[in-house]
Parts: sequence; C-alpha cells; structure tokens
Amino acid sequence: MLEKVGFVGQEKERNQESNVLWTADEFTERLKDVGRSYYHDKHPFHVKMHQGTLSREQIRGWVANRYYYQKCVPIKDAAILSNLPSMELRRQWIGRIIDHDGTNGEDGGIEAWLRLGEAVGLSREEVLSEEHVVPGVRFAVDAYVNFARTKPWIEAVASSLTELFSPDLISKRIKILERHYTWIDKSGLDYFQSRLTQAPKDSDTAMRLVLTYCQTPEAQQRAVAALRFKCDVLWAQLDATEKAFIPKA
Amino acid sequence: MLEKVGFVGQEKERNQESNVLWTADEFTERLKDVGRSYYHDKHPFHVKMHQGTLSREQIRGWVANRYYYQKCVPIKDAAILSNLPSMELRRQWIGRIIDHDGTNGEDGGIEAWLRLGEAVGLSREEVLSEEHVVPGVRFAVDAYVNFARTKPWIEAVASSLTELFSPDLISKRIKILERHYTWIDKSGLDYFQSRLTQAPKDSDTAMRLVLTYCQTPEAQQRAVAALRFKCDVLWAQLDATEKAFIPKA
Repeated sequence: MLEKVGFVGQEKERNQESNVLWTADEFTERLKDVGRSYYHDKHPFHVKMHQGTLSREQIRGWVANRYYYQKCVPIKDAAILSNLPSMELRRQWIGRIIDHDGTNGEDGGIEAWLRLGEAVGLSREEVLSEEHVVPGVRFAVDAYVNFARTKPWIEAVASSLTELFSPDLISKRIKILERHYTWIDKSGLDYFQSRLTQAPKDSDTAMRLVLTYCQTPEAQQRAVAALRFKCDVLWAQLDATEKAFIPKA
Repeated sequence: MLEKVGFVGQEKERNQESNVLWTADEFTERLKDVGRSYYHDKHPFHVKMHQGTLSREQIRGWVANRYYYQKCVPIKDAAILSNLPSMELRRQWIGRIIDHDGTNGEDGGIEAWLRLGEAVGLSREEVLSEEHVVPGVRFAVDAYVNFARTKPWIEAVASSLTELFSPDLISKRIKILERHYTWIDKSGLDYFQSRLTQAPKDSDTAMRLVLTYCQTPEAQQRAVAALRFKCDVLWAQLDATEKAFIPKA
C-alpha cells in the first residue's frame, strides 16, 4: 500500500461486509466512525488553531477561505431541495437555507461569517471579493456543490452528517478563540453560537432521513461513503489553507 | 413556410432587430407581447373551459394532469434558488417554494391543489399516484424543470414571467368555475384565490430582476425567448390534456 502523508485514519480497514444490513444502531456507529477517523477536527491546521498558535494572518486566511464554503452551503442545500421528491421532505430541509441566507428581517449565517471576518480584521469587501480564496478550497467546495446537484438526494443528505460532529468542535473553538485569540472582537463569534443550536437540529433531521431511506446494505454503504466524501471536502479545504498560510518548517 | 395547426400567433413576425437595446418600457412590452400571442389562455382547452362546456371527466383530467405541473413548481424554484449567485437574490426567491410547499404549520399550493382535486371528485391518492398524468404533460413539465436547472438563472427567472398574465386568467377562471361548474365544491378554489395575491408579487420580483440583469440586446432577447419557451410548456400541457380527454369531432 502506498503511504500518504497527512491522512489520518488510513490504518482503519474499509468495511468489507458488502452484504450485511446494519441495524439502526450499527449504521449510526458506522457513520460516527467516519467522523472519529476523518472529521477535520484532527487536521493539523485545526490542531494548531486549538493550541492557540496561529498568527493573525493565519486566522484571517482561514476565515477568508472558509467564507467560500459558507457562501456555498445554501447553494448546496437548494440543490438538495430541488432533488427532494416531496413537499414533506422539502419542508424539513428549507430552513437550512434560511439559516444561512437569513431573511430581509433577520441576518443569517453568511452575514454572521462576514462579521467574523470584520472581527478578525478583514474588510467586508475583501472577504466578498474572494481574493484570498485559494484554488484548492474552491475546488473542494465546488465538488461538494456538484455532489449535491448530481448524486441521489439521500447521499447528499448523508454527506451533510458532518454536523453530527460539529457542535463538539465548535463549542471547543468558541472557548479557544476567546482564550487564545483575545484580539478577535467577541461579537464576531455569533456564527459559532448559532451553529451550536442549528447543527444538532439539522443532523437530527438528516440522521432520521438516512436511517429511514437507506434500507439496503448498498444504500447504507453509500451513505457512509458520502459522509467520508464530505469529510474529505472539509479536510482538503484545510490542506489548501494550511499550504497557503503556514510556511513549511 | 410550413403551416402548423393549432399554434396561435404564428403570423407574428419574430423580432429581427438583433442589435437594438430596448428601453425598459420597450422590453416590458416585448415580454407582454409574448403573453398576448402565446399564453395558454388562448388554448382551445381553456377556451372550452371558460365557455363552460367541459365535462366533469374533462375537468378532472385537467386537474389530475395539472397536478404534475404544480408538484414540480417548487422543484423548479429550488433549482433556480441553487443557481442564484447571492443571498440577497435567494432571499427574494425562496418564498415561492414556501408558497407551494407550505410549512408544517400552514398548507401551501400543492396541498390546495390536492383539495381542488377532491372538490372535482378525484381522491387524494388518485392525484398523488399520477395515474392520470399523460406523457406529453410529463415531458413538458420535465423540460421546464430541466430548463431551470441548466440555463443561466436570469433566463429561468424570465421564464417565470407567465405570472404577469396569470392573475387575469385566474380571476376569470374563478368566476367561470363558480358559474358554470356548480358541481365543484367552492372550498376547492382556494388555490386560485391564493395565486391572485402571490402571482403579482412574484412577477414584480421577476420583472425587476429581468430589467436589472438583462442589459444587452442578446440578454433581452434570451429573456423573451425564455418566456416564449415557458408559454410553450404551458401550451403543450393543454395539448396533451386535450388529446387525452376531448374526443376529436
């Protein structure tokens, strides 16, 4: 086997039981296993962030690049919405788009991310212009949008299940940013606060759909693969951000 | 020129001025011209409906077939939403999806159409099963969804402008149905009542976008062509419905 540098969890065996239908609990554990092995909380860039050792420039680079992901999330969710086969399912999904886009009365996640940008010293225009977004981030995010547009909707739903893992990471991150990056204006952290309540609601919905609609071994394995794909999307963004903003030792 | 039977407005010359940028008023008139010539209020099936001469079977055939269009409208709008390039634009568009899908607290247009089905004597299951939907209707509606998914978003927005013409048709239709089709339970007409206020709001938004974003002769002409395409989508549905439910004299 060709050893690749910087990939966690490579030692983990891929599940080879191709004809076993997992129970709901087993299936849930397989999905959580993906997070345990591949979620981007373990990426060196996040590890450094949480050790408090990133410079202002590096934090800014991360915020500016992650903006491209944030702005594409509602596009991805609208693509899923357009692939959902019933109004009942769409009613369960549409709130995600509003969470990110906001309404004319109430700002959403994209606006909150722009305020985070200002809190770390990036102008609104600078973030909106995407001038700091590196190609690797763009390619990874675009791959995610494309996945949502073109794959069966239940796989796209499964790919959203990284939200199972995000509240832990985000609640740690809020404390870390407040403690180690005191130069960041605290009002900029609203985005993360909102996600602490939105993400569990979203992952509950997605989990229920995945457990309900993936009723064959193949469907279950495709859901696991979709979640793994999404972890790769997040991981690749940090790889590209790290490469651009952290000089090699 | 090959004469085609049953196409209204064939005598009308296609606009040949390929390099003229229309003023906003001229552009608006060109768009309205499309409706004057090609909107489905002039289709023989609608003419018969408004003369009060359709049978119960024929009304039922229309309602059951038109359901397929209704159920695809939010899918089409989610496709447009996913192609819109900013949260500001998405905020203006997302309400259409909620109008049709409803929320868990309030029913939307699809539910209202199902109630219309019941009011004309079709069971909910019968409509939902799509057993009466004829291939020509399905193909036309699918072409519309595909247009929204794949064309530049502003053309998809322009294609929605048949809503400029629908309030006139719908307000006439409500009176006609009440007067000539007294066997239809009036509570079934809620769908049309709702559209009387929703459609003008929607067409105002779409018109503003089209006038703002179509700033070249080519863009204006593509908008006109998109609206013509949409008229064809509506017309073809009635052709297929007529063929299936009205015996040839």
